[in-house]
Amino acid sequence: MSVQLELTREFIDRLKEAVNNNEEDTVFELIKDLHAADIAELYGGLSIDEAKYVYLLLDSEVAADVIKELEEDDRESFLKALPGEIIAKQFINKMDSDDAADVLGDLPDEKKDEVLQNIDDVEQAGEIVDLLSYHEDSAGGLMAKELIKVNENLDVETCIREIRKQASEVDEVYYVYVVDDKDILKGTISLKRLMLARSNAKVKNIFKPDIISVNTDMDSEDVANIMEKYDIVSLPVVDSLGRLKGRITIDDVVDVIKEEAEKDYQMISGITEDVEPTDTIFIHTRARIPWLFIGLVGGILGAHVVGIFELEILKDPRLAMFLPLIAAMAGNVGVQSSSIVVQGLANKTIDFDSTWKKVLKEFAIAFIIGLTFSILILAYNLIFSDSIQLTLTVSSALFSVILFASVFGTFIPIVLNKFHIDPAVATGPFITTMNDIIGMFIYLGLGRMLYRLFA
Amino acid sequence: MSVQLELTREFIDRLKEAVNNNEEDTVFELIKDLHAADIAELYGGLSIDEAKYVYLLLDSEVAADVIKELEEDDRESFLKALPGEIIAKQFINKMDSDDAADVLGDLPDEKKDEVLQNIDDVEQAGEIVDLLSYHEDSAGGLMAKELIKVNENLDVETCIREIRKQASEVDEVYYVYVVDDKDILKGTISLKRLMLARSNAKVKNIFKPDIISVNTDMDSEDVANIMEKYDIVSLPVVDSLGRLKGRITIDDVVDVIKEEAEKDYQMISGITEDVEPTDTIFIHTRARIPWLFIGLVGGILGAHVVGIFELEILKDPRLAMFLPLIAAMAGNVGVQSSSIVVQGLANKTIDFDSTWKKVLKEFAIAFIIGLTFSILILAYNLIFSDSIQLTLTVSSALFSVILFASVFGTFIPIVLNKFHIDPAVATGPFITTMNDIIGMFIYLGLGRMLYRLFA
Repeated sequence: MSVQLELTREFIDRLKEAVNNNEEDTVFELIKDLHAADIAELYGGLSIDEAKYVYLLLDSEVAADVIKELEEDDRESFLKALPGEIIAKQFINKMDSDDAADVLGDLPDEKKDEVLQNIDDVEQAGEIVDLLSYHEDSAGGLMAKELIKVNENLDVETCIREIRKQASEVDEVYYVYVVDDKDILKGTISLKRLMLARSNAKVKNIFKPDIISVNTDMDSEDVANIMEKYDIVSLPVVDSLGRLKGRITIDDVVDVIKEEAEKDYQMISGITEDVEPTDTIFIHTRARIPWLFIGLVGGILGAHVVGIFELEILKDPRLAMFLPLIAAMAGNVGVQSSSIVVQGLANKTIDFDSTWKKVLKEFAIAFIIGLTFSILILAYNLIFSDSIQLTLTVSSALFSVILFASVFGTFIPIVLNKFHIDPAVATGPFITTMNDIIGMFIYLGLGRMLYRLFA
Repeated sequence: MSVQLELTREFIDRLKEAVNNNEEDTVFELIKDLHAADIAELYGGLSIDEAKYVYLLLDSEVAADVIKELEEDDRESFLKALPGEIIAKQFINKMDSDDAADVLGDLPDEKKDEVLQNIDDVEQAGEIVDLLSYHEDSAGGLMAKELIKVNENLDVETCIREIRKQASEVDEVYYVYVVDDKDILKGTISLKRLMLARSNAKVKNIFKPDIISVNTDMDSEDVANIMEKYDIVSLPVVDSLGRLKGRITIDDVVDVIKEEAEKDYQMISGITEDVEPTDTIFIHTRARIPWLFIGLVGGILGAHVVGIFELEILKDPRLAMFLPLIAAMAGNVGVQSSSIVVQGLANKTIDFDSTWKKVLKEFAIAFIIGLTFSILILAYNLIFSDSIQLTLTVSSALFSVILFASVFGTFIPIVLNKFHIDPAVATGPFITTMNDIIGMFIYLGLGRMLYRLFA
């Protein structure tokens, strides 16, 4: 199978030409060897009508995969342009229940109902409706209904027959789940184990009872953490009675992990919504303005802080020269400190240290860093500046500001986390802005003191 | 199986007490139901001697998993304290070849050889040595040798017998790989397919020939991208002749994805090495000083820029009030722009837009943002300031600086990427520092002009 890591501009142009000339065979020839994920990526280069032409030409198994792989926004706009019947018959029909629920979950209610009514397989429609009832970011929202389960009372031979029957409906078989008569999850049995066992052995006596499962309402981030930590490929999901409801496979969780990481990354860069480079200018602008606005308000407050010390600056305008340096160092140190705390919290790295011990450690690090840089700037100013007041002010302020910024940067995410607010919110612009303001206050305050002392 | 998401302080204290009183039964009782990943996390709370006591008590299958799950630094310090023979017999013995190679790869050469000589299974030792020859960050470094492969010429019955034989050595069977007589990878056959097929059918006629494989020297990030994009659970690795060498499973790739995300996150926060909250103060300090130093140099350059305009500040010290605001806005806008580009590049989101189109889009976004904020600050200063020069300077500077910072923030990562330098290097402190300096220059330069014009 050809894996195209980069679809070329030329390829797209050829495809568009063939579509617009209505050359069905050429179009089919061009895309027939592509993987669904690559066909999905073509979307960005096609108009909706061109995409319709291409996607309706696909075998419905591939078409289902393509729809699944589309970016959410693209998928929504594409499906809106199609009648519910075609969506049901060409796309949803061949999807696993979890993917179908994801696709339908993004559609407007009316369209969703229209599609559901057009699904021929009543059982599939029922499963999709069940899944739609769970919150998107919960284990229930992540799981698929398709799984293979056997009763613990079967013998190996009947069990294999049963698996054969069920397997024809499930794409990938990682585990066979073992349940009791009440459908309560008891454990797993691997195909390998079954193949190695005698055919009259009872499942009950050979299955593996140690099994990690999660409840339908567990948060998807926690699900991801568990699957990652315990290296689980397929995680069974149970209801509050312990009854087997579905399973989550690792590929779904990879997406959760990726999204989570991207969210944190954008958060630290001061972007408030999840944006893709391909999103509209409007979406980009909207995602970027909120933190910048807070930065602006912070800047105005900072201006007032400087305003308080106008007389000092009038006396020695060189004080203004180092204002940006102090503010920038405070911001940088603060972001470093907070990002380490945020990452530690996100990884749930077990920590036998108390909060105070963490803050103390950060204090020690800040002390070394502060000392290093205040000595460096002291040396610089001793060589290049003839004002002893300025030299002392800049050095002592840099030291104090680094200490303050790093303790502040450590403290804020810990406090937010205690109040169950995502600590990543605090990193980036918030920490930078706060540290800017307080840093300048410390700097100019020390300046006033030292200029009076050494007048 | 009990999954302990948070091991308590009390539990550790009880465990330590039992260890120090040499109560073997109590220790065993405490840890016997824990998952290997949880036992590994206990390490942080134990001394090396206590850890030795606990880990040598474990069944060697579990012990192998625990060692695998330890943080790299912890593992290294722990294994250094043990003789090579024990490492080989108690830990390496039960590991898959890829994990064993990872563990041995981190040990000093002498220790590594000592361990290798003590591995009883010659074949395992050979596989580990083979794997050690690949670069850690390549497909070869990620893959495991354990896999199940069958010749395409077998019939289903012989094939199943063959799989049974091989399966006893492989933990999880996701796919059975099909090779020809020269060991060249031809495709896969699923256990499900085999279970559904007639026993005299030839593998050749029923296997799935479409298969995505990668070369041993592919970069691990690219491997992760492929597995994620195409939802692959187990990816075969071939040499340049197409011969099957090993397979990479998704759980190994989840770690790569996580590490990559953490690296980018730390990069944007100005941290130069991968640090964990539990690392020593020295490591933390070393990771944080380099970018801060660049920030300091930038700050000094910035001070010189301000110094050039000393006369302007002496004439109107209120100019200094808005210096930090301009610098902060420039920094924030620059980081936003660069992080979006960096993420787009990392995701290899296919883009049919040229570089210039991207920069143009960023320019449009920046134009709107710049206009918004310069109007806001104009309104603020019209109300609260009585200097028309100051008001005009701050507004026009804010507009220009936002435009400049965002184009600069977009451009730099794209250029770095063209030269095959990780674009993430450019985000965070570098962009912030550069934008600070240039932003202040623009601000004070405009100030000089406007104050002369409106004198």
